[in-house]
Amino acid sequence: MQFYKGRKVLVTGGCGFIGSNLVIRLVEAGADVTVVDSMYDEYGGNLYNIAPVKDDIRLNISDVRDSVAMQYLIRGQEFIFNLAGQVSHIDSMHDPFTDLEINAKAQLGVLEACRHFNREARLVLTSTRQIYGKPHYMPVDEKHPLDPVDVNGINCIAGEWYHLLYHKVYGIPAAVLRLTNTYGPRQLLKHNRQGFLGWFIRLVAEDKEIQLYGDGSQRRDLNYVDDVVEAILLAGKDDRALGQVYNLAGDEPVSLRDICERMIATAGKGRFKLVPWPEEKKKIDIGDFYGDCSKITAELGWRPTTNLDEGLRRTFAYFENCLDEYTRDSSTFVCKP
Amino acid sequence: MQFYKGRKVLVTGGCGFIGSNLVIRLVEAGADVTVVDSMYDEYGGNLYNIAPVKDDIRLNISDVRDSVAMQYLIRGQEFIFNLAGQVSHIDSMHDPFTDLEINAKAQLGVLEACRHFNREARLVLTSTRQIYGKPHYMPVDEKHPLDPVDVNGINCIAGEWYHLLYHKVYGIPAAVLRLTNTYGPRQLLKHNRQGFLGWFIRLVAEDKEIQLYGDGSQRRDLNYVDDVVEAILLAGKDDRALGQVYNLAGDEPVSLRDICERMIATAGKGRFKLVPWPEEKKKIDIGDFYGDCSKITAELGWRPTTNLDEGLRRTFAYFENCLDEYTRDSSTFVCKP
Repeated sequence: MQFYKGRKVLVTGGCGFIGSNLVIRLVEAGADVTVVDSMYDEYGGNLYNIAPVKDDIRLNISDVRDSVAMQYLIRGQEFIFNLAGQVSHIDSMHDPFTDLEINAKAQLGVLEACRHFNREARLVLTSTRQIYGKPHYMPVDEKHPLDPVDVNGINCIAGEWYHLLYHKVYGIPAAVLRLTNTYGPRQLLKHNRQGFLGWFIRLVAEDKEIQLYGDGSQRRDLNYVDDVVEAILLAGKDDRALGQVYNLAGDEPVSLRDICERMIATAGKGRFKLVPWPEEKKKIDIGDFYGDCSKITAELGWRPTTNLDEGLRRTFAYFENCLDEYTRDSSTFVCKP
Repeated sequence: MQFYKGRKVLVTGGCGFIGSNLVIRLVEAGADVTVVDSMYDEYGGNLYNIAPVKDDIRLNISDVRDSVAMQYLIRGQEFIFNLAGQVSHIDSMHDPFTDLEINAKAQLGVLEACRHFNREARLVLTSTRQIYGKPHYMPVDEKHPLDPVDVNGINCIAGEWYHLLYHKVYGIPAAVLRLTNTYGPRQLLKHNRQGFLGWFIRLVAEDKEIQLYGDGSQRRDLNYVDDVVEAILLAGKDDRALGQVYNLAGDEPVSLRDICERMIATAGKGRFKLVPWPEEKKKIDIGDFYGDCSKITAELGWRPTTNLDEGLRRTFAYFENCLDEYTRDSSTFVCKP
């Protein structure tokens, strides 16, 4: 953690779920942190997320699509953790243009800004395992064909490839992480359009019923957010990561039904019911998915260290005291720019 | 050709090189043709291209990025041949946002228009073999990994995948052709940023010297434009093409040096000189490339039928009488909307 002490770091999407956990860790490490977040109502940005460090960071409310602001903000940064994104797969089908602008065009904007004004900053992009689509084999490694099942997947691939291309052609020092389902403190719970995990956590925390599609037997791998933050920090500091794509992955695949049962046992409340698949969701479901993270283990020494039961315990402990900060409609402004 | 008689057809990029050859063929077949073209100065649109059929078509000057116009124009069409694109690889690196808007965002616009206003129209998108990047093996078939070497390649992949996704999720009847180097009458000769072929043709036609990079030994496969038009028409009418991607390819790989020599012999003028690689071009060069078109041969019965010598003979014969229409700065308005 000494590595980031005094270093100038920009975190886009820094008020969001993973971004804010990263920001808090960077502040603990003594980094000089600028947070960029659009605070778009429906996305994960929540000022409560960064409340613990609000006096230790620079907060800049702006959209990554604002290329003029980004051109200014990236100057002089030593690290850019590029976490801002539209991450709802359903939203990408309802409003494909917004998804395109945020996940592809804005990424190109950040890279063009780096090309013209800061070719030294180390860039880490967080992408998604969703771009593999329905797995041809499992565990899915980085060589698995990309077969996106939604507009979001297509645009995330473009975002990734811009990073790799700008590394190859212009020497921009960039690395890409493909995240799997991530959970933990500060997760978006406002709605169910950013994946099932946050929604399940909310329903259990509120002692409500989870509706599980089909028989709940489809398996996923999960990462606790602190493990993901660790991977981002490793990718930012290790030269071996330059121009590389790495999968993150959980330590074992687990069925959705099993996840529900373990959440309910950990929280001591909630319940679940099996219901038939809604047509729209069935169309873009990919069945089982679990990834192979042996490349990042071998090259950067990363592996997940928090098992599901421990991660869920910490997650429900976090939300126990502040659930309303994550379930009410608008957030309170707790931090001055 | 009876198939297209009386059918309502929209051709985007219809004043361009391949588009205008397609339009003329469709008019010969008795189709009811609407041409959309932006007439963007630096692109391939040239009213001289469609002069032979100007009284037989509806010409609508509009940019495919104009989603409002596209929403209107696609209604009632039975076929949409989606040829409009930014096809300069160098331009995509200098101005990546324009490339993104034309090759990705505008494609999404056409598909959204189809989803909302015309789910029946058969769509054919022309993409490029450039998206394969530097070949891992040859001949390159459709299973070859996509490894784009420029912004244009990344955006063309997004454009393709939107078509395949809208087919899968919404049932939009779309097919994709990945074109290789195409040459022939009506090709853009104004500048050298849309590939080497048109530029070589112009230099030879003007009895000037071609500067060939390196030793000129890198090989390519070429298609004569009439063969490409035939593939587009087949993909539009055959149900087996729905949701499919097909390579086009030449009948044999040929070196750039050999192409120069055959052009010079055919035209009876011009010359060439070997010169060292410019750094910027070397960076994005892919070495040898030739494709495998056995999938479209097996499924749609297409194969190239015009050999290089015959194609070059027809090409130089065409430009012999109208070279100035392709080399002066602005085109003359010969056809009313």
